[in-house]
Amino acid sequence: MAATAANRRVILKDYVEGYPREEHMEVLPGAEVPLRLAGDDPPGSVLVRNLYLSCDPYMRPKMSRPLRESYTAAFTPGSVITGYGVARVLDSSDPRLAPGDLVWGITGWEDYSVVKPPATAFLAKISHGGEGGGVPLSYYTGILGMPGLTAYVGFHEICAPKKGETVFVSAASGAVGQLVGQFARLAGCHVVGSAGSKEKVELLKTKFGFHDAFNYKEEPDLAAALKRCFPEGIDIYFENVGGAMLDAVLLNMRVHGRIAVCGFISQYNLREGEKDAVRNLSAVIGKRLRMQGFIEPDHKHLYPQYEAWVLPYIRDGTIAYVEDVAEGLESAPKALIGLFHGRNVGKQLVRIADDE
Amino acid sequence: MAATAANRRVILKDYVEGYPREEHMEVLPGAEVPLRLAGDDPPGSVLVRNLYLSCDPYMRPKMSRPLRESYTAAFTPGSVITGYGVARVLDSSDPRLAPGDLVWGITGWEDYSVVKPPATAFLAKISHGGEGGGVPLSYYTGILGMPGLTAYVGFHEICAPKKGETVFVSAASGAVGQLVGQFARLAGCHVVGSAGSKEKVELLKTKFGFHDAFNYKEEPDLAAALKRCFPEGIDIYFENVGGAMLDAVLLNMRVHGRIAVCGFISQYNLREGEKDAVRNLSAVIGKRLRMQGFIEPDHKHLYPQYEAWVLPYIRDGTIAYVEDVAEGLESAPKALIGLFHGRNVGKQLVRIADDE
Repeated sequence: MAATAANRRVILKDYVEGYPREEHMEVLPGAEVPLRLAGDDPPGSVLVRNLYLSCDPYMRPKMSRPLRESYTAAFTPGSVITGYGVARVLDSSDPRLAPGDLVWGITGWEDYSVVKPPATAFLAKISHGGEGGGVPLSYYTGILGMPGLTAYVGFHEICAPKKGETVFVSAASGAVGQLVGQFARLAGCHVVGSAGSKEKVELLKTKFGFHDAFNYKEEPDLAAALKRCFPEGIDIYFENVGGAMLDAVLLNMRVHGRIAVCGFISQYNLREGEKDAVRNLSAVIGKRLRMQGFIEPDHKHLYPQYEAWVLPYIRDGTIAYVEDVAEGLESAPKALIGLFHGRNVGKQLVRIADDE
Repeated sequence: MAATAANRRVILKDYVEGYPREEHMEVLPGAEVPLRLAGDDPPGSVLVRNLYLSCDPYMRPKMSRPLRESYTAAFTPGSVITGYGVARVLDSSDPRLAPGDLVWGITGWEDYSVVKPPATAFLAKISHGGEGGGVPLSYYTGILGMPGLTAYVGFHEICAPKKGETVFVSAASGAVGQLVGQFARLAGCHVVGSAGSKEKVELLKTKFGFHDAFNYKEEPDLAAALKRCFPEGIDIYFENVGGAMLDAVLLNMRVHGRIAVCGFISQYNLREGEKDAVRNLSAVIGKRLRMQGFIEPDHKHLYPQYEAWVLPYIRDGTIAYVEDVAEGLESAPKALIGLFHGRNVGKQLVRIADDE
């Protein structure tokens, strides 16, 4: 292995208002970096070769100028974008990890990253992926990574589904939605999804086993579409989009319904003051609804339980997972931007190196 | 006792749009009614003499033309308005109740009511009120009635407060709010309330022991007022008003905060399409908030536990309860309407007869 290598990096050039565009980011050409930890890297640091990068909706709020405190710090203009990824350890002073280990967790949008404490706490060793593991390594950006645990926690822990209940999932072909739909079907629920194209709607009904699905862009009245799909109402709503869809759902919830609030992707690119109005919240009282927000990092302790539960379903084909893989670090900005226009079909990720 | 008596009745004349006015209701002069159950009253019926009527915000949505299913049926134009009250049993074919018993529950806005099954299930025998009981009978429209159980369930069950947490209560001098504030103080929380007049704000700080309070009508920026009162944020919001206050609260909630959604009184008199927009719901995700709607009838089983807990506090003066008592059935429409203009100071009720 060479003592140095060229490290390309994707940086955020400036804070974003509205929809992100390619010129908000820049792919810097490779600068030589050492392939060993340096003397001034703090104890516990880990040097990795990044293999897959994950494009996730939560990254958009981090691109905005920070207006107020948030659970997730904004990106810093001029610095490398960070996000979930899959990587191979090249050097490590973290006793949990050794050179050659595969890991998933928060890393940088670059060829090589030095992950330093406390961020190393989010690096998890991969036991089942890649050759011999029987599942694609890339799944650790999706079904076996943050989106997988998000779907599991949001559906099973937050929504507490019962057999026979009705479930609605928005952004249903996305990284998280496609899993919630399949988990709901496995739980004996009646599940309907919405997505933004004919192709995605077909995928929901054929590949993911949703009982029904609709293209929200072709529905002039979302509340009427939901009424058509759920004549008796919705017990569980897995919320990925917010805005007008949430308002329509509120009118169609059943008594004692639960709403797991995972994301508001329809709102992330709107400027302050442009956010969609929600006007039907009084349904929360009359229908005794529980709306609960959650984020995956609060539930990391459930990962081993989730992984043990989901792996057999992946291996025997009970659960499918559709990925949309962009090739090469240079394509990462465009892939991320595509999320906010619904261009991806399935989980969006970027492959930046073969698993050498 | 005479075999018949004059029965005055308050009817809803027509469905209400916007704010209710006195002409929406009518007090009909007394028609002679028998003071015994009649042969065609179904088994289990109870004839009562109404003593106190309760004016509660939830009655307003029942005055609107029913647009969609609701947990609470709309009133019927031309019929007697129903609501919570305190009454004495005159005749009963319900084995739980005997003539002379005092009861609280759903009755009519009239001198005498025949309560029929299944509504009789909501009639509860009063054990501690009136002469000898040591607490005013009228309290069974408030602290010992529906508002009391509402405050208890919403605060203790839905919000699960911990000592040292911060609590915000809107409509804080009302029938429910004044109790939530005192329960929060007893739970070792730091509690702040909002109300709509200087007099009410003083009451919060002096009589009810709120640590701080503000007049929302004098605050040009509700979010800034909350930031001033809660520099570290709000752990628990007891929601009685909705609309702009909810939007301001969302910006000031702390991570893992809880919002018990009890009422949206600011919205009840707005027409469809006029409802206030809520635009800050994305805080539910980032702050992992739980918003939960509830209504008191779902929690009736907790009443004995609540009554046993609260009675000693009433008797030893630890908990105060302020009532706003209108005199006579004729004043009932005006008293109810006053709720929606904040004219009441404390729990609004109507005394329609001495406890004969």
